[in-house]
Amino acid sequence: MLTLDKVYHARHVLKDAIRQTDMIYSPVLSENSGCKVYLKTENLQITGSFKVRGAYYKIAGLSDEEKARGVIACSAGNHAQGVALASQKFGIRSIICMPDGAPISKVEATKSYGAEVMLVPGVYDDAHNEAERLKCEMGYTFIHPFDDDDVIAGQGTIGLEILDQLSDVDVVVVPIGGGGLASGVAFAVKSLDPRIKVYGVQSSGAPSMLTSVEHHKIECLPSVSTIADGIAVKEPGTTTFELCSKYLDGIVSVSDDQVSAAILALIEKQKMIAEGAGAVSLAAVMYDKIPGLAGKKVCCLISGGNIDVTILSRVINRGLLMSGRQCSLTLELMDKPGQLVGVSTVIAECGGNVTAVLHERTSEGTAVNGCYLKLQIETRNFEHIRQIKERLKQEGFKVL
Amino acid sequence: MLTLDKVYHARHVLKDAIRQTDMIYSPVLSENSGCKVYLKTENLQITGSFKVRGAYYKIAGLSDEEKARGVIACSAGNHAQGVALASQKFGIRSIICMPDGAPISKVEATKSYGAEVMLVPGVYDDAHNEAERLKCEMGYTFIHPFDDDDVIAGQGTIGLEILDQLSDVDVVVVPIGGGGLASGVAFAVKSLDPRIKVYGVQSSGAPSMLTSVEHHKIECLPSVSTIADGIAVKEPGTTTFELCSKYLDGIVSVSDDQVSAAILALIEKQKMIAEGAGAVSLAAVMYDKIPGLAGKKVCCLISGGNIDVTILSRVINRGLLMSGRQCSLTLELMDKPGQLVGVSTVIAECGGNVTAVLHERTSEGTAVNGCYLKLQIETRNFEHIRQIKERLKQEGFKVL
Repeated sequence: MLTLDKVYHARHVLKDAIRQTDMIYSPVLSENSGCKVYLKTENLQITGSFKVRGAYYKIAGLSDEEKARGVIACSAGNHAQGVALASQKFGIRSIICMPDGAPISKVEATKSYGAEVMLVPGVYDDAHNEAERLKCEMGYTFIHPFDDDDVIAGQGTIGLEILDQLSDVDVVVVPIGGGGLASGVAFAVKSLDPRIKVYGVQSSGAPSMLTSVEHHKIECLPSVSTIADGIAVKEPGTTTFELCSKYLDGIVSVSDDQVSAAILALIEKQKMIAEGAGAVSLAAVMYDKIPGLAGKKVCCLISGGNIDVTILSRVINRGLLMSGRQCSLTLELMDKPGQLVGVSTVIAECGGNVTAVLHERTSEGTAVNGCYLKLQIETRNFEHIRQIKERLKQEGFKVL
Repeated sequence: MLTLDKVYHARHVLKDAIRQTDMIYSPVLSENSGCKVYLKTENLQITGSFKVRGAYYKIAGLSDEEKARGVIACSAGNHAQGVALASQKFGIRSIICMPDGAPISKVEATKSYGAEVMLVPGVYDDAHNEAERLKCEMGYTFIHPFDDDDVIAGQGTIGLEILDQLSDVDVVVVPIGGGGLASGVAFAVKSLDPRIKVYGVQSSGAPSMLTSVEHHKIECLPSVSTIADGIAVKEPGTTTFELCSKYLDGIVSVSDDQVSAAILALIEKQKMIAEGAGAVSLAAVMYDKIPGLAGKKVCCLISGGNIDVTILSRVINRGLLMSGRQCSLTLELMDKPGQLVGVSTVIAECGGNVTAVLHERTSEGTAVNGCYLKLQIETRNFEHIRQIKERLKQEGFKVL
C-alpha cells in the first residue's frame, strides 16, 4: 500500500542517485498566462525524465536473490532508460523489450546505460508479451512502468520536492499517461497539504485516465495518437486509477497543436527542451484549461525532455509558420525572362529571406504563357508577410 | 579598479535580483569527452543570459541623480535585455539603441522589460554613435557591455558560484566576446584558487581577444562573421584585454560547425537551448581544443540561450544531415509510369520517411527519355542510408 512513509523512504534512497531538479520561476510565461508560473524541471533529470525515480526505488527494494536474477521491462521510452540506469547503478542485469520499430536514438540511449535491448517484431503489445514470457521463463523481475506502489512512491518524491522548493504553491499541474507520476505527486502533496489543488493533464489523442475517471471505471481506448508519445497509454492501471480518482482535483486534455506551442514557448522563453508529454502541463495553463488559476502560484511539472530531434525540428517549423516567421507564397507569373529577378528584388528589399523556390510551368490552372512560382521565405511576423505581399502586388505580380 | 571585494559586493547586491543558476553534471557529455563535464547554466538565467548580472550591478551603483536621468546602452542582444530588466527593477528610464536590422524577437524582448528601443538606421557602429550622442546631449549614463569594472565584477559573481557549487573544479572554460565575462570569472577564480585553470574560447570567425593577447596589444578586426553573434566583437576593451592577458591560462577558438554540433549535443543530451556564444565553451571541450583535460573536472560556462528560432531550426537540420538522420538522394529514372511507385515502395519497406520530392524532366545531363528524382528522406543513421541506397540499386534504380 502507498503510504507517506514510503514516499519519504523513497526520497532517502534516491538522495544521491538522482538530481534534485531546479524549480524555475518564469516571468514571461507568467505575464502571458495571468498566474505565477513555476516549472519543476524533470526534463533536466538524469536520463532526461522523472522515470528514473520510480525505477530506481523499485529496484533498490528487490531482494538479493531477485537482484541476482535481473530485471526486465517493456518500453520504447523513458521507462526503459530509467530501468537501465538504475540497474547499472546496482550492478544488476536488465533486459528491455522494445518493438522493433523503436527510434534508434532511444535504443542507443538505453544500451548506453548498460541494458540488453531485445527488439521484438511487431508493436508495443508484442514487446510486452515477450517481456512477460521471459519473466516467467527466466525468473526476471518485471518492472512495471506505473502500476506499482514502489514506482508510484518514487515518482511521489517530486511532490515532496515541490513543497520544499515552493511551500506556498497553490496549484500543481501534472502530466498523465498511465498515471504513476500523477498518483505519486497528488498523493504526496494532498497528504501533506490538502488545500493545494492538483490537476492532471492528458493528450486529447489519448485520454484514457480522463474517460476512466469520468465513467468511474477503468476503460481501454481502442487506439491512441499524439505527439506526446510518453503519455500515449491505452489503459490506466488499477492502482493509479484509484489514486487519481481519489486525489486529483480534475483532469483536462490538450491538443497536439497546443502541446507544440508549449514546446516552442519553453524553447524560446525558458531555453529548455521538453518532449510532448513533458509540455502538456504548461499547455494546459497556456490554453486556460484549468479553472481558477488567476493570480495563483502554479507549478507545472515538466516531466521529460526526450523528444526526437526530427520531431523537434517539425514542431519548430510549425511554430515558425504559425507565428509568421516563415511563409509560403505562390505567384502566377508571365513566362518571360526577368520575372524571377523582379520578384526576388522586391522580397530582398522588404528584408525577406528566400529559403526555397519552385518554378512550375505546366499546371491545369495556368494560362499557356503563364507559370507558377512557389517561394518559401523567412519573415519577421505576419505584418512583414503582409508588407511583402503588398509590395509584390504594387509591382504588378499576381499573388495567389 | 577590480577587487575581490567588489565581486563579493556584487554578489550581495545581486542576491535577490538574479537566479543562482544550476551546475549540472553531464554523464553523457563526460563519457564522450574523457573528462568530467559540468555545465554552469547561465542560459537558464533570467533574460536568458549572464549579462543581467553586470548590468544590474552597474545600475545599482549609480547615484540618485544618475538614476533620475536614466541610462542608455547600445546592443542588439543580451546586454540590451540585461540593461532593460535591471532598469525596470530600479524603476529608472532606459534607452537602448539598436541597428534597425535587429531581429524583431530581440526588439520585442527588450521592450517587454520596459526599455525604450531606438532603431537607428545602419549597422552596430551607427547605433553606437547615436547612443554616444544621446548620452552627451541628454545626460544619460552609458552602460558599457563589457569594458567597465562594475560590469566585470557583476559577471565575476559566476566565478564565486562555480567555486561554491563545485569546489574541486580543475578547469573553467568561458566564452569570450568583448571579454567582460572571461575577465570577471578568471579574476574571481584565480584570486581565490590560482591552481584552477581558466581558458577562454572565441569563435574562429571573430578571434579579436585571441589575436590581441597573442600579439600583446589590442587589435581591431576589420570584420567578424559567426553564428555566435553574442561574441562577434571586433575589438576587446582596455580593461578586459589587461585582465584576460593576466588571468587566463589560454585562449582557443572553435568553428561554426563545431558550435552547431555543441548546440545539438546540448539539445539532445541535456535538454537545453544554448545560443552560439553560449555553446563555444562546450565545443572547445568536445573538439579537444584545450590541453590536459583528461580525467579532470571541467566546468563549461554556458553563457546564454537567446538563439533565434530560425537559426536554431537551421542548426538542427544541419545536425540531422551530419548525423545521418536526414538525407537527400538523387535518382535517374526512366520516364515511364510506375517508376515513382517502385522507388517509394523500396524506401517505405526500408523504414525511410520521405519528406520532400522533386521530379525533374529536362536537364542537360539526362537522356531524352530519362528524368531526375530528388528525394529528401528522414533516416535513422548513415548505415540506414546505405541500406536504402543498396536496396534501390538492387531493384534496378540508378542512384547518383
